[in-house]
Amino acid sequence: MTVTHIQLANAIRALSMDAVQEANSGHPGMPMGMADVATVLFTKYLKFDPQDPEWFDRDRFVLSAGHGSMLIYSLLHLTGYARPTMDEIKHFRQLGSPCAGHPENFLLPGVEATTGPLGQGLAMAVGMAIAERHLNAHFGDDLVDHRTWVIAGDGCLMEGINHEAVGLAGHLQLGRLITFWDDNNITIDGETDLSTSENVPARYEAAGWHVTSCDGHDPDAIRFAIEEALADPRPSLIACKTIIGYGAPNKQGTAATHGAALGEDEVAATRVELGWDAPAFHIPPEIGEAWAEAGQRSVEAHEAWKNRVSGSADKAEFERRIAGELPDGDAMQTYLESLAAEPPKVATRKASEMSLTAINKALPDTIGGSADLTGSNNTKTGATEPLTRDNYGGRYIYYGIREFGMAAAMNGMALHGGVIPYGGTFLIFSDYCRPAIRLSALQKVRAIYVMTHDSIGLGEDGPTHQPVEHLASLRAMPNLDVYRPCDAIETAECWALSLKRKDGPSVHALTRQGLPPMRTDVSENMCAKGAYRLRPAENDCKVVLLASGSEVHLAVEIAEKLESKGIGADVVSMPCWELFEAQDDAYRADILGTEDDVLRVSIEAGATFGWERYTGSDGLNIGIDRFGGSAPANMLFEYFGLTEAAITPQILSALKN
Amino acid sequence: MTVTHIQLANAIRALSMDAVQEANSGHPGMPMGMADVATVLFTKYLKFDPQDPEWFDRDRFVLSAGHGSMLIYSLLHLTGYARPTMDEIKHFRQLGSPCAGHPENFLLPGVEATTGPLGQGLAMAVGMAIAERHLNAHFGDDLVDHRTWVIAGDGCLMEGINHEAVGLAGHLQLGRLITFWDDNNITIDGETDLSTSENVPARYEAAGWHVTSCDGHDPDAIRFAIEEALADPRPSLIACKTIIGYGAPNKQGTAATHGAALGEDEVAATRVELGWDAPAFHIPPEIGEAWAEAGQRSVEAHEAWKNRVSGSADKAEFERRIAGELPDGDAMQTYLESLAAEPPKVATRKASEMSLTAINKALPDTIGGSADLTGSNNTKTGATEPLTRDNYGGRYIYYGIREFGMAAAMNGMALHGGVIPYGGTFLIFSDYCRPAIRLSALQKVRAIYVMTHDSIGLGEDGPTHQPVEHLASLRAMPNLDVYRPCDAIETAECWALSLKRKDGPSVHALTRQGLPPMRTDVSENMCAKGAYRLRPAENDCKVVLLASGSEVHLAVEIAEKLESKGIGADVVSMPCWELFEAQDDAYRADILGTEDDVLRVSIEAGATFGWERYTGSDGLNIGIDRFGGSAPANMLFEYFGLTEAAITPQILSALKN
Repeated sequence: MTVTHIQLANAIRALSMDAVQEANSGHPGMPMGMADVATVLFTKYLKFDPQDPEWFDRDRFVLSAGHGSMLIYSLLHLTGYARPTMDEIKHFRQLGSPCAGHPENFLLPGVEATTGPLGQGLAMAVGMAIAERHLNAHFGDDLVDHRTWVIAGDGCLMEGINHEAVGLAGHLQLGRLITFWDDNNITIDGETDLSTSENVPARYEAAGWHVTSCDGHDPDAIRFAIEEALADPRPSLIACKTIIGYGAPNKQGTAATHGAALGEDEVAATRVELGWDAPAFHIPPEIGEAWAEAGQRSVEAHEAWKNRVSGSADKAEFERRIAGELPDGDAMQTYLESLAAEPPKVATRKASEMSLTAINKALPDTIGGSADLTGSNNTKTGATEPLTRDNYGGRYIYYGIREFGMAAAMNGMALHGGVIPYGGTFLIFSDYCRPAIRLSALQKVRAIYVMTHDSIGLGEDGPTHQPVEHLASLRAMPNLDVYRPCDAIETAECWALSLKRKDGPSVHALTRQGLPPMRTDVSENMCAKGAYRLRPAENDCKVVLLASGSEVHLAVEIAEKLESKGIGADVVSMPCWELFEAQDDAYRADILGTEDDVLRVSIEAGATFGWERYTGSDGLNIGIDRFGGSAPANMLFEYFGLTEAAITPQILSALKN
Repeated sequence: MTVTHIQLANAIRALSMDAVQEANSGHPGMPMGMADVATVLFTKYLKFDPQDPEWFDRDRFVLSAGHGSMLIYSLLHLTGYARPTMDEIKHFRQLGSPCAGHPENFLLPGVEATTGPLGQGLAMAVGMAIAERHLNAHFGDDLVDHRTWVIAGDGCLMEGINHEAVGLAGHLQLGRLITFWDDNNITIDGETDLSTSENVPARYEAAGWHVTSCDGHDPDAIRFAIEEALADPRPSLIACKTIIGYGAPNKQGTAATHGAALGEDEVAATRVELGWDAPAFHIPPEIGEAWAEAGQRSVEAHEAWKNRVSGSADKAEFERRIAGELPDGDAMQTYLESLAAEPPKVATRKASEMSLTAINKALPDTIGGSADLTGSNNTKTGATEPLTRDNYGGRYIYYGIREFGMAAAMNGMALHGGVIPYGGTFLIFSDYCRPAIRLSALQKVRAIYVMTHDSIGLGEDGPTHQPVEHLASLRAMPNLDVYRPCDAIETAECWALSLKRKDGPSVHALTRQGLPPMRTDVSENMCAKGAYRLRPAENDCKVVLLASGSEVHLAVEIAEKLESKGIGADVVSMPCWELFEAQDDAYRADILGTEDDVLRVSIEAGATFGWERYTGSDGLNIGIDRFGGSAPANMLFEYFGLTEAAITPQILSALKN
């Protein structure tokens, strides 16, 4: 007996509705609506090998409409991935099951990206498609030659980030990116015409995409549309006209199927409607076999690829790249020693550029960029030619005024592997890309954010451009390392740390204004401890000054003043809270001192929020807990009381009490 | 002598280049490029009265490309506003001058919105245009009948929020919104084709806009395009082909004019090129008079409007609305008493809906909405019909999946006045609209955010949808009140407070899950104090439990357990840190107790970041400092240790030490 397309697709529908029903929670409508498209893609086109989910030259598939997670769980299970098992599917949305409410890349091999925050899946796919073409340019078709496929819903298309992602993909003409739009006319609130009147195909065409459409329930039409997309050199949008919750006789086509279990009666009625006799969580053997067979389609291609890699002259470098390991060599240490020999007085954004000059020369993995602030973020170096549609081998991306799209693309590149993305904007605009920074942290990827103009030190542009609460709000985010170096040596050390860290993102908060050198000893990466005693007290220590970035030299000035009065003061430079928290209790206690013995003072040109963790109940927190102003930077530091003259008296007064 | 268009326009160019030169900082290119368009708009079309910048029926003009701030400062000065004075213009970008780097609505009457964070100006203008049509529907052409004009640059158009704003405006067919696109082909990094290949007009047309174009230096062409836009029922985009830095003979048309002073030589050369003989900061009298005359164009219309208001039957209500005062009445107290009589066990999102039901009935000013989570955010009530292109009088907006666009539109409505906007999304997606929340706070507007599903209590949707660091990151933002009520009564109190607050935004963080009632005394709005002793210790007080929202009832459980062991424990409900900080020292000390006497414990299902401010050096911080998980809510509370059984032993152990 030949298994038909509809039987294959109904296997997805059945698993999806049954798992949601069992959990009594979830989104059956999307997987049921897109089952036909996904079946065609996974049984005819997608290049993958369930035995090796990490096969580097596999096609990438991103379920941007992540709420339809049962679609990907069904596909992975049916095509023969080791996980999820049927038992794990039965425990959809339960504690410990890798079948989480939304697909999590860190829980399940085969899930290429964590999706659910709408719009970001497609935007990450753009980054994957960039990384693919870039590596193809360097390693050739033999080693890197795959596609990126996306399923996106109306939510993904309405989000602002979609505009940025689509614009970037069109500009770079990423022809190997193909997006299926689940054009089902339904959002959570009801029919799409409640909130949108957009001609979506026309918008994509305006951005330089190829657009076609198909009946999303007709396998031949789906194939025809895919063939058309494959033949076109532009990125493609395939508008798939579908019925949400397809097969549920009383609910299909309505928002009722979107985000809730169908209910037992409707599940039963759907079985009848679809002609699906098998009990819940049971796949009839012949259908299971047909799916498993589809999962083996690319095994030969995989073998051939492995042979090509084995025979390649680039094998060692290629394997290093895809493993994400840094090359041997001491370029960074050489650079650090050159700094120590002649310590420069530079802004840390400039110091970052100097670090990057050393890094980009030694490390071909980096792809830099900026959201239209190249000269201000100091992100471009001589070694990095622009990456363009005519030169995918370039290593610098002019992202345009697309902070969120940039950050999401960086996530996609990091997830793809083989490259290490860094990208710049002003620290204030970390807010614009914050949802993607969160996904960097959640997904545990090495995305490196270069965020300059990190305080009122930005000066004249004023409060709309001066971060105040941003350091605090980024430090509050789990699994994100926030660096704020105080000079060129610390900047280089922080760069070294963020490159070494494979399992999470980093933010470098950097100054616009020049900063004096604070240290010359480069025998140890002191930033690795998060905080360290930069300048120990000379007199009996009564004050511990905790500062980061541009306020470290201010702390030194204050310490000198205090010492001149016979009051000992340690200066602690604190470039990274997260790394300090990771030190043992003894180290932290030694650095912070005992509250009974010393007054702890934090000094940072930003919100004091959070600093009480280190300064304690009786400490002093010097910072800015209101919005900034427009004036030259030095005037602002004076206005906001961030000067030795303003701070020392507060310390003396606190010491008296 | 007749003053020509070019002379009027050159006055703007001269003031702009001279002020930037004097500050040696700023953006001359945009004001010089758009001087002709602005001249036509301000001398022929814009309805305004410099003697009364707050005239309610004035046209609104938003400089979305806020970096070109000298354009608006020049226009306000030239048309006769009391400020900025020429001296203030000379102090452009200096401490204390209202001529800040970017235009700030709170510094200068006539600046309708704080702009600079790109894309948000146009998105706020959409909100203004909505408010105008809405009030027009209620009060008629006699009282409300004006337009909203925008100048936007390439940056505004590339930002993701532009897609959301344009989609919303097209859907609602806001025909009285006219946007000039400064189509100068230049961004900071260089020519636009570095980063974009978009067909902008086609995209706007796809969103339902009318699009036309003109030579942005030809006054007749500009007028012609405006007439076309005025005649079209759709929102209009006028692509104005301009030369950035127009008039600077050696730099015009290049990125060099974008963000830096031209330099003295080029300023001098520009004077020659433009035929502008007057010295810096000097406007030739006849040109000054012509500009001043243009500023008087609408004086008669203003008088006529005042007369119509005086004669209107709606006068009192209209004046109350535009003053932003709440109506008399005790609807809220009546509602609170009904709650006290029969305290419900409901989720606070449901409690918010119940509050809104009372509010929306008593307060016609509210315009609610949700970013496609109406049923989940509980934002729609019976009194609020949808606001649509066919019924601008409606009071509920289906914003679609456009969190950022929604928040910016809310800012625009609040800035416009006459309405009080509130809008909903999940708390996790506060990240998506965070840049607009910041502008709510900076601009001091009454925008009210209804942010539900405020913790792991969201349950099965998992870590992408569970806020962890969001309360901390919002509390770190200046001038934002963050409420997290613990039951229906607190929810109503918080609503009352956020409505009363005219000078800033509020966030309501609300639960998905049901919560037991905690209080029945409604004689005083206890939330107004930010934190209060909900349940005083019975035994000798040894522990102060600080909790918010869904953890307050947990704190009560823990207190009961401690009391059963003879240990006195105060339970402090802390719905709003900002209001607690505003209390006097004595009150705060009384609530928090002395560290020597009591152990302070914070309990909140989110990051502990920041809580040390209240718990001190020896306190205990119970929370979640990592990402959440996918499971039913009660399982997650147990998994993350947020149960009486998990917390009480930690307190007992801390008490021993």
